Amino acid sequence: MSQTRELGPLYRDYIDCLNEQDWSRLGKFVGEDVIHNGRPLGLAGYRAMLEQDFRDIPDLVFAIDLLSCDPPLVAARLAFDCRPKGAFLGIAVNGRRICFAENVFYRFAGGRIVEVWSVLDKVEIERQLAGQS
Amino acid sequence: MSQTRELGPLYRDYIDCLNEQDWSRLGKFVGEDVIHNGRPLGLAGYRAMLEQDFRDIPDLVFAIDLLSCDPPLVAARLAFDCRPKGAFLGIAVNGRRICFAENVFYRFAGGRIVEVWSVLDKVEIERQLAGQS
Repeated sequence: MSQTRELGPLYRDYIDCLNEQDWSRLGKFVGEDVIHNGRPLGLAGYRAMLEQDFRDIPDLVFAIDLLSCDPPLVAARLAFDCRPKGAFLGIAVNGRRICFAENVFYRFAGGRIVEVWSVLDKVEIERQLAGQS
Repeated sequence: MSQTRELGPLYRDYIDCLNEQDWSRLGKFVGEDVIHNGRPLGLAGYRAMLEQDFRDIPDLVFAIDLLSCDPPLVAARLAFDCRPKGAFLGIAVNGRRICFAENVFYRFAGGRIVEVWSVLDKVEIERQLAGQS
């Protein structure tokens, strides 16, 4: 049961690490052989993915909206309010403001994230941008 | 802690109810004032949404891939392998087979689902159909 209490704070520290773009600490939270949506990115590939996200979305902030910890799983609903510079998920956002969620599961092993299953709410982004035009 | 053990079986019963399309039992699992992605559908609207899903996707089956229970929240990754008849999420699927996930959170109160936050993996569906063309 102690693990239940530990995964919540650990996950919040991971999100702080992302928001601080403190990539030297990423290996504290993410395993060397991490898999993301079925792709074996590894820690270096995972870091490269996140660095690209911050280049594409300069005002990117990760905010936890919902959190469910049931070891070895953590599930989070992350809320984003940001302005991607160009295309995002195949949509020409081009600097417009979008607010959307990511519902994401993580499997932890040995205190680190070893697998991620992420879904971004593209349907909601399209709905918002359609309302602007 | 007992609630932790109870939500898992209760949620699995809810999924069985959907797969059996046993709408007379839906109120056992879903609250009268249920909210779905911010919309106050209520039980009748929620049932109508599900009935429409089965009309649009005759071979629809809900399968639990991942489950995280942390009362009052349940988070599930649902896996779908189906053939929507026409358009689905704005995509002209037209009977082609698609395999995709829904990452979804539920908040329970009084033993029933009172709020749902669902994200469907439209990006993955588009990727699969692009690979076919």
